[in-house]
Amino acid sequence: MPGKTCNVALLGTKFMGRAHSNAYLKVAKFFEPPVAPVMHTVAARNEAELRQFAARWGWKHCTTSWKEAVANPEVDLVDIVTPNNVHAEHAIGALEAGKHVACEKPLADTLAHARQMAEAAAKARGKTFVWYNYRRCPAIAFAHQLCREGRLGRIYQVRGCYLQDWAGPETPLMWRFQGEVAGSGALGDLCAHTIDTVRFITGDEVSEVIGAAMETVIRQRKILETSGGEISGRGAATSTRTGPSTVDDIVLFVARMGSGALATFEATRLATGYKNSNRLEIHGDKGAIRFNFERMNELDLYDATLPEKLQGWSTINVTNGNAQHPYAGAWWPVAHVLGYEHSFINQTADILTVLGGKEPVVPLPDFADAYKVQRVLHAVTESSRNRTPVKLSDIK
Amino acid sequence: MPGKTCNVALLGTKFMGRAHSNAYLKVAKFFEPPVAPVMHTVAARNEAELRQFAARWGWKHCTTSWKEAVANPEVDLVDIVTPNNVHAEHAIGALEAGKHVACEKPLADTLAHARQMAEAAAKARGKTFVWYNYRRCPAIAFAHQLCREGRLGRIYQVRGCYLQDWAGPETPLMWRFQGEVAGSGALGDLCAHTIDTVRFITGDEVSEVIGAAMETVIRQRKILETSGGEISGRGAATSTRTGPSTVDDIVLFVARMGSGALATFEATRLATGYKNSNRLEIHGDKGAIRFNFERMNELDLYDATLPEKLQGWSTINVTNGNAQHPYAGAWWPVAHVLGYEHSFINQTADILTVLGGKEPVVPLPDFADAYKVQRVLHAVTESSRNRTPVKLSDIK
Amino acid sequence: MPGKTCNVALLGTKFMGRAHSNAYLKVAKFFEPPVAPVMHTVAARNEAELRQFAARWGWKHCTTSWKEAVANPEVDLVDIVTPNNVHAEHAIGALEAGKHVACEKPLADTLAHARQMAEAAAKARGKTFVWYNYRRCPAIAFAHQLCREGRLGRIYQVRGCYLQDWAGPETPLMWRFQGEVAGSGALGDLCAHTIDTVRFITGDEVSEVIGAAMETVIRQRKILETSGGEISGRGAATSTRTGPSTVDDIVLFVARMGSGALATFEATRLATGYKNSNRLEIHGDKGAIRFNFERMNELDLYDATLPEKLQGWSTINVTNGNAQHPYAGAWWPVAHVLGYEHSFINQTADILTVLGGKEPVVPLPDFADAYKVQRVLHAVTESSRNRTPVKLSDIK
Amino acid sequence: MPGKTCNVALLGTKFMGRAHSNAYLKVAKFFEPPVAPVMHTVAARNEAELRQFAARWGWKHCTTSWKEAVANPEVDLVDIVTPNNVHAEHAIGALEAGKHVACEKPLADTLAHARQMAEAAAKARGKTFVWYNYRRCPAIAFAHQLCREGRLGRIYQVRGCYLQDWAGPETPLMWRFQGEVAGSGALGDLCAHTIDTVRFITGDEVSEVIGAAMETVIRQRKILETSGGEISGRGAATSTRTGPSTVDDIVLFVARMGSGALATFEATRLATGYKNSNRLEIHGDKGAIRFNFERMNELDLYDATLPEKLQGWSTINVTNGNAQHPYAGAWWPVAHVLGYEHSFINQTADILTVLGGKEPVVPLPDFADAYKVQRVLHAVTESSRNRTPVKLSDIK
Repeated sequence: MPGKTCNVALLGTKFMGRAHSNAYLKVAKFFEPPVAPVMHTVAARNEAELRQFAARWGWKHCTTSWKEAVANPEVDLVDIVTPNNVHAEHAIGALEAGKHVACEKPLADTLAHARQMAEAAAKARGKTFVWYNYRRCPAIAFAHQLCREGRLGRIYQVRGCYLQDWAGPETPLMWRFQGEVAGSGALGDLCAHTIDTVRFITGDEVSEVIGAAMETVIRQRKILETSGGEISGRGAATSTRTGPSTVDDIVLFVARMGSGALATFEATRLATGYKNSNRLEIHGDKGAIRFNFERMNELDLYDATLPEKLQGWSTINVTNGNAQHPYAGAWWPVAHVLGYEHSFINQTADILTVLGGKEPVVPLPDFADAYKVQRVLHAVTESSRNRTPVKLSDIK
Repeated sequence: MPGKTCNVALLGTKFMGRAHSNAYLKVAKFFEPPVAPVMHTVAARNEAELRQFAARWGWKHCTTSWKEAVANPEVDLVDIVTPNNVHAEHAIGALEAGKHVACEKPLADTLAHARQMAEAAAKARGKTFVWYNYRRCPAIAFAHQLCREGRLGRIYQVRGCYLQDWAGPETPLMWRFQGEVAGSGALGDLCAHTIDTVRFITGDEVSEVIGAAMETVIRQRKILETSGGEISGRGAATSTRTGPSTVDDIVLFVARMGSGALATFEATRLATGYKNSNRLEIHGDKGAIRFNFERMNELDLYDATLPEKLQGWSTINVTNGNAQHPYAGAWWPVAHVLGYEHSFINQTADILTVLGGKEPVVPLPDFADAYKVQRVLHAVTESSRNRTPVKLSDIK
Repeated sequence: MPGKTCNVALLGTKFMGRAHSNAYLKVAKFFEPPVAPVMHTVAARNEAELRQFAARWGWKHCTTSWKEAVANPEVDLVDIVTPNNVHAEHAIGALEAGKHVACEKPLADTLAHARQMAEAAAKARGKTFVWYNYRRCPAIAFAHQLCREGRLGRIYQVRGCYLQDWAGPETPLMWRFQGEVAGSGALGDLCAHTIDTVRFITGDEVSEVIGAAMETVIRQRKILETSGGEISGRGAATSTRTGPSTVDDIVLFVARMGSGALATFEATRLATGYKNSNRLEIHGDKGAIRFNFERMNELDLYDATLPEKLQGWSTINVTNGNAQHPYAGAWWPVAHVLGYEHSFINQTADILTVLGGKEPVVPLPDFADAYKVQRVLHAVTESSRNRTPVKLSDIK
Repeated sequence: MPGKTCNVALLGTKFMGRAHSNAYLKVAKFFEPPVAPVMHTVAARNEAELRQFAARWGWKHCTTSWKEAVANPEVDLVDIVTPNNVHAEHAIGALEAGKHVACEKPLADTLAHARQMAEAAAKARGKTFVWYNYRRCPAIAFAHQLCREGRLGRIYQVRGCYLQDWAGPETPLMWRFQGEVAGSGALGDLCAHTIDTVRFITGDEVSEVIGAAMETVIRQRKILETSGGEISGRGAATSTRTGPSTVDDIVLFVARMGSGALATFEATRLATGYKNSNRLEIHGDKGAIRFNFERMNELDLYDATLPEKLQGWSTINVTNGNAQHPYAGAWWPVAHVLGYEHSFINQTADILTVLGGKEPVVPLPDFADAYKVQRVLHAVTESSRNRTPVKLSDIK
């Protein structure tokens, strides 16, 4: 057990509040982080919900004032899971208070907000982290390692789709459809993950958005009687009135990477049949990899350096601690498979490792990193709006 | 949050000790059990390991005397994760002390022990539970529900394989290869799960073992320098001396069910390429199901009542809370997939539900149930040894 | 056996010459076409190869003059499998001679040529057919039928990728890399199939290319010592000299369909690991389909009108004659699977059916249809070159 | 083109008559056999059907007397596709007439018949061949090669299932359910293939049937109004009268191989959901292979000699002529996939190769080989009937 501790203040209590609380609860049971997390304070606006949440998860304190939480000198790390449009205010406040900050993705609702956050991070004493948690899906971390070892060779092509189907006409107007809160729809919610993952695995950056389409397919949605509502919201009571959805249900774009590789990106909430199919294919001259989150314990590898007659798509169950699959040693025996929540716990372990002055298993995204993703989101939006290619070098 | 609590004493700290501790830690975060578990006492023989384990997982007390734990009037539920050959002593002791008992599978090392346990349970005041946890893989629970709804119709055939590959010649002589401790090899460790799962889904019992083979393929194994060793043990230091393995690496049998359906069962630790492939196929005249634990979030269903041109194997991602997939509502949004550990947490939720006087999501196995499995294990052993068919009606 | 016959003249003898000859050989063994094909004449320039080809396949006559073949009054149907840049000359010649014409895809090397062909067809007495043979993969024909029955509902999205990997740096400069012969690379060779298939299944047309990239990744290739060379050409002797490849190795584009649906298209010869993965996904509000040619006997269907708990991707083995899967009744018992060549035989059966005055199983593409595909190819090329969106209404 | 020819007489015209005729038609179009087949004579009892069949497929002569066909001095090879119970008479007659003989599998209806055939073959001048055509599925031939190269190492286990589902209660009493004609049900029809395939790949023989079950699940079936009826027969008119089915719908057995490896075999016509799933898994200490005929163009290989972190099940598309996949060079470019019928054409090519004095791609089964399969069929039948293990050394 670590001797040092890290007092955490969590801002927000919804879906991600739950995922993060679970991670803090479990991380030191499975990992040996140099610093142990203490679930110190949780902050949210709805006091009744807040108290219940704190009691359930074992947060020691709770407050309806995020500023109070951030100002508390006992707090070491501020973890932000609030809506995208308040990330900047919360994160900059925390950085200015000298805290380490972990922020949910995307970094912000707008490029301007994201830039302010990156600038604040550059000046701050605290470290920053962004919850691009798919980097810590073991299969993705392993793909990163394989690519770094040169097993894919020169990258020719990338194909990334993040496919969900929950946003049909019956889904009500929850905050995720409100542009002023969410910033964007499938783009920031889903595609941001894919963009970060591609950067992470290949070490390459999108250099140009060649063409893009962002589409609000369902333009009017039923208004929710009560605020809130998690991802599906289908069970929630809705009124007969409707209001405009102002975000993209579907985003598609074709891009060029800095290395010259070509890429297609797609994110959609209308891909009937796919519930959470975050999938990625990367083709290089020496090999290729393929991933689908719905089968997250598997990474498919095509090794083009094997004798030709033996070449095939190999499905590797990336849960083998003896084989040094990333994070596998902390968990269960081989093929006693992991789930969605484990990516958050793995990330928490790495954050604590970095706070303890050590190296994470694979690189963690910070605000500077996440700002690079945000520039791509902005370029996609510009390209779609203006119907022109957009070079990333033109986005500051 | 539940007002009532249940003080748990855990006997044992190895692989299953960890899986169960994790379940007690998490269950009331995700479920609303009528009774909340309290991690009261953990007991094991190695005091240093024990203290470390208790501190890590938050057990309030620890003791090297299982009798002391069982005798403690504060304890409500005794959870047994010790080796198979001491299940009987521990469980009967706990039942006689008036406790509820949850025992790891298989129920015991021998039929005689299992019978004593079932008899003790029949007379006891406490409730009994056995950790046939795969019943609470959501896909298996869903298969049970589908079968109960009549969607498979009359069952023609069952095919169950539990395939692992960790027991090659380099794997040392850990306790799992010692018949006097483990009772059996692949049979009790793996095939017992398959037998229980088939019973659970179909509601039918094995009535005859028609032919069986149990094989110790690797007859001499290297002796471990230190005792202990988890599933793989491959990393452990071994001596140059060898000793005899006395359990089955492979078990195969052909059986008839009470309904007349035919079944094949296989369990092996030498199925190169399969790490934890607990897979099952059940064919009825109206439909069929297919499951493979390595893709545990999926149940494949073939609905033979659809128009013929549309019939196919349908892969259902059984994580949809809106669709009432079992246990899904307690966890994450659809296709934010679950892992191995969730079956234990789901079972813990159901145990607490029963202790609170309510109905579990799907039936829980008790000692009487697990004794039925043990009779099949015994029949397989007899059939293999005597090279004859064995009727279950001849096993008392 | 049909009483009427149709004398066929085949122009060309390479890969497609073989595929078509096989189709004429077999069609009346498995189908009952109202008109029986007679393998009358084959024409090609290399006389030695030609004679050998004719003898092997049983063509009665051969000639090095395509004009002679086309002019022969005994010939009823001219089948063109020559390089793309001579399709127009051969097809228009044949139409003017009053023949029916079947032409390999893409219709032509250029839009101008394709327009001339479509115009000639409009004026001609003979019928025209284009070998967009994937329409007669049973799974694709079945997808067409399902879509026509309304099983997909309103189409939201289309995702079509045709992925091969044979065009690495070692592949020599065969004709497929020469723009003046092939017209284009992956675009006309592969993506044309996807475009036609999408039109065929959905009944919808591409209305705008929003953004496109066509990329010659390998710009210099080794010159072949000898002319010719089939798809891979890897075994062929090559010189140390190199010459420029002038076609796209990769083409990517984002498009809008007439109905408003969004679509991504990709074709590539550098998708390491994929040999012939012609795959397609179409998502509607009532259902979705998924196809991959490498598993051509399977169509995956997601039926979103089933009870939610039973919804899944269903893999239908589309070989069931009893179930009226298209073309299945002509072949083997269910799941005695078909291969690549069967799509050509199925198309030949339908061509003969149409020539006999009857209805094909599913619609056949003619020159007017294929001209619509060519307009999309042209729009993609323009969009890529000019870096702007291109509306199809602007392409004449 | 080969100068030498081989006149073939085909006895029988049903499903297999069609499959073989297609093979003779096509073999010399794709292969370069040293001897060219001539479709000389076809014999069958129903003259009207016979004439139509001969005309359709291009057999030069036809006769209702198999003896006449066999006696014809022009005939070189007699190919037998008649029901199992007349194989012996036809084959021995042909051998005595000095012909080469190719016989459909299983070799015979009974062990006694099979023995007579094997003895006749041993004394005859002609060569013998048996249509265990799955050996010439490219994936199976490749598995044989890989095993011969030592890539699987010491074999631990074999698991072979041949699963179909067409024999439900509505399927009428066609000849396949009549023991006196068929000899057995799923055993001889399906499982014989699996037994031969296992022998072929591993080079090992079944040495003991440890336990077996053969089950007639549907004991009464509707009588067909007309004789005949192909595999499914579901479309045929049936009477309201029923008669007894006297063959196994399901056969299951556990066996030991000569090397000591254990094996499970299963064949069934009641595996709802599986249409023609001939699947096989073989596990050795160095690797494993997996095959499913419904995806016949793929062989899955697990190479346990790769670095542990890279080990996985690799799906090899075995259609790569450049990579020397067996038979691939004769057909289409890589992943332009093959179907069921190609296994027959490949076998025909190898038979002609052997008749021309050359080596086949992989070994061909002759009567001696097929007799070994028949001994296993007999042992299974004895084991099931007598409810005892049966050693193959006790079967003469």
